[in-house]
This record gives sequence, C-alpha cells and structure tokens, in this order.
Amino acid sequence: MSGKLQAKRAVVTQADDFMGPAIAALFREEGAFVLEDRRDLTRPGACEALIAGAGKVDILVANLAIPNPRARAEETTDAQFSAVYEALVFPLHRLTKAVLPQMLARGAGKIVVVGSASALRGTENRSCYGSARGAQHAYVRNVGVEAAPHNVQVNATGQIFVENPTYFPPEMIGTPELAARLKEVPAGRLSTAREAASLILFLCSPESDFISGQIFPYAGGWVV
Amino acid sequence: MSGKLQAKRAVVTQADDFMGPAIAALFREEGAFVLEDRRDLTRPGACEALIAGAGKVDILVANLAIPNPRARAEETTDAQFSAVYEALVFPLHRLTKAVLPQMLARGAGKIVVVGSASALRGTENRSCYGSARGAQHAYVRNVGVEAAPHNVQVNATGQIFVENPTYFPPEMIGTPELAARLKEVPAGRLSTAREAASLILFLCSPESDFISGQIFPYAGGWVV
Amino acid sequence: MSGKLQAKRAVVTQADDFMGPAIAALFREEGAFVLEDRRDLTRPGACEALIAGAGKVDILVANLAIPNPRARAEETTDAQFSAVYEALVFPLHRLTKAVLPQMLARGAGKIVVVGSASALRGTENRSCYGSARGAQHAYVRNVGVEAAPHNVQVNATGQIFVENPTYFPPEMIGTPELAARLKEVPAGRLSTAREAASLILFLCSPESDFISGQIFPYAGGWVV
Amino acid sequence: MSGKLQAKRAVVTQADDFMGPAIAALFREEGAFVLEDRRDLTRPGACEALIAGAGKVDILVANLAIPNPRARAEETTDAQFSAVYEALVFPLHRLTKAVLPQMLARGAGKIVVVGSASALRGTENRSCYGSARGAQHAYVRNVGVEAAPHNVQVNATGQIFVENPTYFPPEMIGTPELAARLKEVPAGRLSTAREAASLILFLCSPESDFISGQIFPYAGGWVV
Repeated sequence: MSGKLQAKRAVVTQADDFMGPAIAALFREEGAFVLEDRRDLTRPGACEALIAGAGKVDILVANLAIPNPRARAEETTDAQFSAVYEALVFPLHRLTKAVLPQMLARGAGKIVVVGSASALRGTENRSCYGSARGAQHAYVRNVGVEAAPHNVQVNATGQIFVENPTYFPPEMIGTPELAARLKEVPAGRLSTAREAASLILFLCSPESDFISGQIFPYAGGWVV
Repeated sequence: MSGKLQAKRAVVTQADDFMGPAIAALFREEGAFVLEDRRDLTRPGACEALIAGAGKVDILVANLAIPNPRARAEETTDAQFSAVYEALVFPLHRLTKAVLPQMLARGAGKIVVVGSASALRGTENRSCYGSARGAQHAYVRNVGVEAAPHNVQVNATGQIFVENPTYFPPEMIGTPELAARLKEVPAGRLSTAREAASLILFLCSPESDFISGQIFPYAGGWVV
Repeated sequence: MSGKLQAKRAVVTQADDFMGPAIAALFREEGAFVLEDRRDLTRPGACEALIAGAGKVDILVANLAIPNPRARAEETTDAQFSAVYEALVFPLHRLTKAVLPQMLARGAGKIVVVGSASALRGTENRSCYGSARGAQHAYVRNVGVEAAPHNVQVNATGQIFVENPTYFPPEMIGTPELAARLKEVPAGRLSTAREAASLILFLCSPESDFISGQIFPYAGGWVV
Repeated sequence: MSGKLQAKRAVVTQADDFMGPAIAALFREEGAFVLEDRRDLTRPGACEALIAGAGKVDILVANLAIPNPRARAEETTDAQFSAVYEALVFPLHRLTKAVLPQMLARGAGKIVVVGSASALRGTENRSCYGSARGAQHAYVRNVGVEAAPHNVQVNATGQIFVENPTYFPPEMIGTPELAARLKEVPAGRLSTAREAASLILFLCSPESDFISGQIFPYAGGWVV
C-alpha cells in the first residue's frame, strides 16, 4: 500500500474533540502513525510535555476546540473571553514553539491548524470565538512565512458547517434550527467529518510542500 | 487500483500550455479518461464544439493561458489588453456555459480554473494579465455559489512560481533574473508542475465536494 | 472656504449613471472643478478624446456602469457577457492609459474606480457582472502598485446597497423584494448616494496619498 | 466652523502611544471633545473605570499598543506572547463591552480599532504581534455585524509604515535599515501620522455610517 502519510508520525491534539476522530482515522488509513493526544493543553507544561514525549513529529495537527460561547460582545464575560484564548490561541503557540525546532533542524515538517470560518466572515454572537480563530489565522500567516524557507509548512483551514462532536454534534443534525442555518449555505448540507479531514490530509501530505502561511476556507460556499 | 478519478472523464484545455501537461499526466495516473484539447479557444464556436464533442464531461479543467504581456498600464495597447481577455476570460464563460447544463442535470461535476496569484497581489507590469485573472476569480466566486446547490463545484487556484512551459519555461530556470525573483518567495524555489497539479487534482476529486466558489492561492508563501 | 478638492480638476465619467450625480455634487461642494462627461465610452476613441479634451486632470473617477444583466451563468449569452466587459473593463484601461502619463509626469494624481461588492462575495445571477467588477479590482491592485512610487494613487471601492439611478433606482425603494434583500444587510438599510460618495471623496483627497492599489468594500456589513 | 466631529465626545486610549497624539490633535481640530486617556489598560478594572468615568462616549478609538516583540515563533516566550494579548486583545474586549451598551441604547456610536497590517500579510519575526492584531480584526468583523443594525459602527484599520512614537519613532527615521524596508513599499516613504489619522477620522465621522465590520488596510501599497 502506498498511503500518502506512509511512515509519518502525526500528533493530533484533543483527539476526541472537533476534527480529532475523523483526522486520526483518515491519517491511519493513509499509513501514518497517529499519536492521539487527549490531555488538557491549557495546563502549564502540557504542550511541552506532549511534544517532548512524542519523539519525532513529522506532522502536528493543532486541533484545538472549546464549546463556542455564543453571546453578544457586550454579554461576553472576561472569564469567557480569556477561556477561549487559553484553549485556542496560547496552546497553539506553545505547541508550535515546542515542535518547530525539531522540524527546522530536519528541514521537514507540517503544522496544520484546524481553524474556523468565524474568523473570515462576521456573524452575531461569535465575537469572542471568531476573534480567537482570527488570532490563529494571523499566527499561521506569519509563522508560515518564517518556516517556509526551511521546508516546513504551516497552514490552516477555516471550516464551518462540518459534522463534528464539538460544534455540529449528532443531536443537532436534523433540527429545524440547523435546517434554517443551512439555507445560508450554498452547498445546502453539512460536510461529513471525513470530507473535511481530506483537506487536512492534503495539507499534511508531501504534495502541499509549496504551500505555507495559507488559510483555506472550507465552508460549502458560505465564505467565498 | 483505486485512483481518485477512476472512471471520470476530464477535459483539459490548451493541453500543451501552462499546467496542461502536468494535469493530464497526473489525472491519467489517477484513473481518469483525459481528453486533452489543443484547439484555439478564441475562435467562434470552438468552446461549444469542444464540449459538444466531448460527450459526458465529469471534470472541466479550464487551463487557459496566453504569454504574459508584461508592460506598464500606460504602455499596454488596446490590442494587447483585449487579446488577454479573449484568451483568458471569454472562453472561460463559453466553456462554462456549454458544460454546466449537463453537470447541473446530472447533479454532479467539477470545474476548476487554473488561475494566477497576479490577481491577488499587485505587482508592476501585470495590470492587464492580473486583471483578466481577477475576472476569472470573481467569475468562479459567483458561479461557484450558483452551482453548489446542484452538487456541482466550481473553484480556482491562484498560482505563481510554478514550472510550466508558458510562464516559467525551462530556459528561465537557473537564470539570475529568476533567482532574484525567488528571493521574494518564502519557499525559496519554484514549485514543480506535478506538485501544483496535485492541488488541481484535489479540487477535481470527490473529497472536495463541499468546496465551491473558492480561490486557493498556491504561491510558496508569496501570497498569504 | 477650504474644500478638500479646492482647485482640483476632476473628471467623472457616465455622469448621469451610477454614482455620477452624487459624486459631482459633493466634489463641487468641496471646491473641485468637475467635468461631468456623458459620452458613450464603449465607442472607439471616446476615452482618449475625453481625456485629451479635459486638459489637466487631477482626479479621474472611473464611474462605469451598465444595467446588471442578472442571469445564471449558463443563461448568460456571449453578447451579454462581452457587453459588460465593453462597458466596465475595457474603458477603464483606455481611460487609465490616457490619463496616467500626465499624472506620472506631474507626480500627482488620483484614479478612483467606483466598483462593486459583487466581485467580493459571490451570489446567484451575477457571474457576468461580478467577474467584470473583479477585473476592475485586480486591475486597480496592479496599477496602484505601479503608480504609487510616482505619487499617483489608484484605488477602488466595492459597493452594494447604495441608492443610485442604475442599480438601486427610486422605483425599487420600498418594494418587498428590496426589503427581503435588506434582511441580509447588517446595516438594515440602503446607503444614501451622498454617504457613498464620501468614501470616493476620501480616496480623491490629499489625505489618502499613502493609499494605493487598495479595494474598499462599502456594503453595510454585507461583505466583511 | 463646521468640524466633522462637532460636539462629539471621543475617547482615545494610550494617548501618548502609537497613533494617540495624531488622532487627538486632528479630532480636536474637527470639533471633538477628546478625552485622552493614559492609564494602563492591562490592570483589572481599568477599562471599565475609563468608560464609567468618561460619561457619554460617542467615539471610542481603541488605540492599543505594545512595543513589537520581534522574534521568531520558536524564540517567543510564553510571557512575551501573553503580554501582547494582555495589551492588545483583552482590553479591546473590555473596552467594547463597557462602551457598547450606551451606544446601543442611543442607537449611535463609533468604535475604531487602530490595527496593523501585520495581521494581513505574514513576515518574519511577527507571529506573536501579528496574531494579536489578527484577533483584533476578527473581533471587529464579528462585533461590527452585531452592532450595525443598531446604527453603531465598529471598524478597524490595518496600518504599517506610519510615523508614530511606538513603532516608527523619530530615531528610526533616516536609518539604512528603514530605507531598506521602504524598498518593499510601493509608496516609497513612511506615512505621516496625520495622514494616517485622517483614515481614523473618516471612520469616526457620520459619513461612514454605512460601514461596519470592515478592515481598511493602510500600507502604502504593501498590502493590496
């Protein structure tokens, strides 16, 4: 078999959340050794320990998630606001800082951030969440340029309307509220998690070695 | 064998130019029947005849190219300007108009435009070329939204610094002029044509069925 | 009085259409000598004659418009498609080519394209119109970079939902169809023509001398 | 006199830093009552106390700055990283949360974030700073959509290469290092602080009442 990730060692964070399960499954099919991590990355030292314990990391999938605290800006408490950054932004930097040196030293590596279209198109009740996702994108845009000369690629997606246990869980499927939201989506449906994982796979494969610092919307035509 | 394009019929226009050769080769490896077309699509009726003669078209790769008339805006003649639109923009509409009905009727199909990063980041001497490439992108953004509800996906790339016979031909490789330009590119090199064709392949594969109306830069970090 | 455009000579094309009336009125209040042109710029030589006859042109407002041929891509005829380019894109190049030399020679000048948000966000039935507006934006992005070192600024807006005789005429105001469309607009209303002209004024004033090659959406929050 | 901000009450934060001095001066010329605040907004309660003490606030200019910790991602410490968010992102939310209710209640108000182009185009050594600026932009994109229906506008700039005491101070002017960087800027020069303040003024004036959730690059053609 000639999987795209044959002999690659991939770390997937928050492996039970967001896109973790679909990514781990697809990456294994493609031949990767997948280290599914489930620790709480907001705790001091957790990111560093994860990378130190992982050994060689060819691919880091920064799959960071926190239930979306949907609230208007003026109703979003300071605690809610900082909690989202503690979960989505600061661990991204700590993971990157921990794993980049080995990648730069080898002259090879991939970091992909599973991001959100909330950073790309404004909507009500997502100022906190969307802003943290925007921080991720701008981080990738800058680190991607730094890493590219060393043949390390750093990219992100900006997904929305994808089935996943954190934001579009099974109990939401088929509800009138979701049906109403899907009317705004040209594709008219949710993406399966596996479909969305295919874009992550593409960005973790050797065929995307020329792409770095880029944000890829994945949104059924909702963001164009 | 389980090629990603198994049993798919793909039309690649201007098959000897731009990304044509690399796309045709990769698509065949992935199991597609590739109809490499070489006719002059600026001639009346050519686009319509191509599609009519192609029969069932699962995938249209609008690989349109014209040698880039690099000149400052005030030095670009009307003839140069309209020639670029005759080659890059009008055939895109005629091809789309000809092939969309069968795709919409079947509720399946892919149109991918091989586009240029010149539309995304301004530089000197490319106002004519870049504007026509911008027309392509905005066309895709709109048609992609129209087609998505019918399970037809229309997307585009925005590539630059990719080896290809039209814009980065073999005689340019290794020249001091190119070396100077590559200093602006974070990746520090040209992409091979095959690498770039992989992104086109991704956008022509079932795994991108949720993506429509989207522009994907492919530029070694030059556009982020 | 200290108008922002005191002693400036401004050309406004298609002065009875689109944003022409509001721009001419506001620019006069700000002290400009406004040359309102009404000729058909699709005719050979018209653009060149306009500029030749205008003498010194400090400001060119490329206010180009054609009634929006709303149709799905597959229903847009070749004649409709090329007519939109004849009206919106080719005259933009001819006007620019004609007026840039005098601006470059003086080391001062402003070209502002009244553009459309249809190029920035895809919707149904606007592939033809939106693509031509996208060509304008990409043209500006490139020419703006060429002109900036010579202290000539070239910019564009991307407006939508603005009262104007061409696209949002008086007879449309208050209709249920428009009310339905305005539900998608966060601002919840149309912009007056005068408000929208203020952004054009800003881009034609000395205070925007550092801005070139830029696209400014103007859309009540519809494009963010 | 008919200043654009006649009778408006404007709060400018960090009034000695970044764009504070230029904004305060220009706004006063335009008739505003300017409350120049100089407190440390990272301290608990500081943002809330500022707004509570300001009384009626028609305009909030979120002029937040911290000396740019230029370092590669893998060399940026956790303390450096969080300090930038403490200075640029969390106070933006606290200020917004404090001031929005009075603006929403009145159905009028402007919030403008003085942002950075570092969020829009990646470069080396700015992953920390650029990511925090990206958080600001995505915050504005979302809050701007929320506020627009209530006739409150929230927008941001994305500036770079502007004279200011924090990032482009007098001692940098004329240095060979700056001259080298300016070669990348089509405008070929720094913007004066006053010029850049004009864009902020535009976004704080009634004439921009239709604009919300929008990011305006201000970069001499460096970002197009």
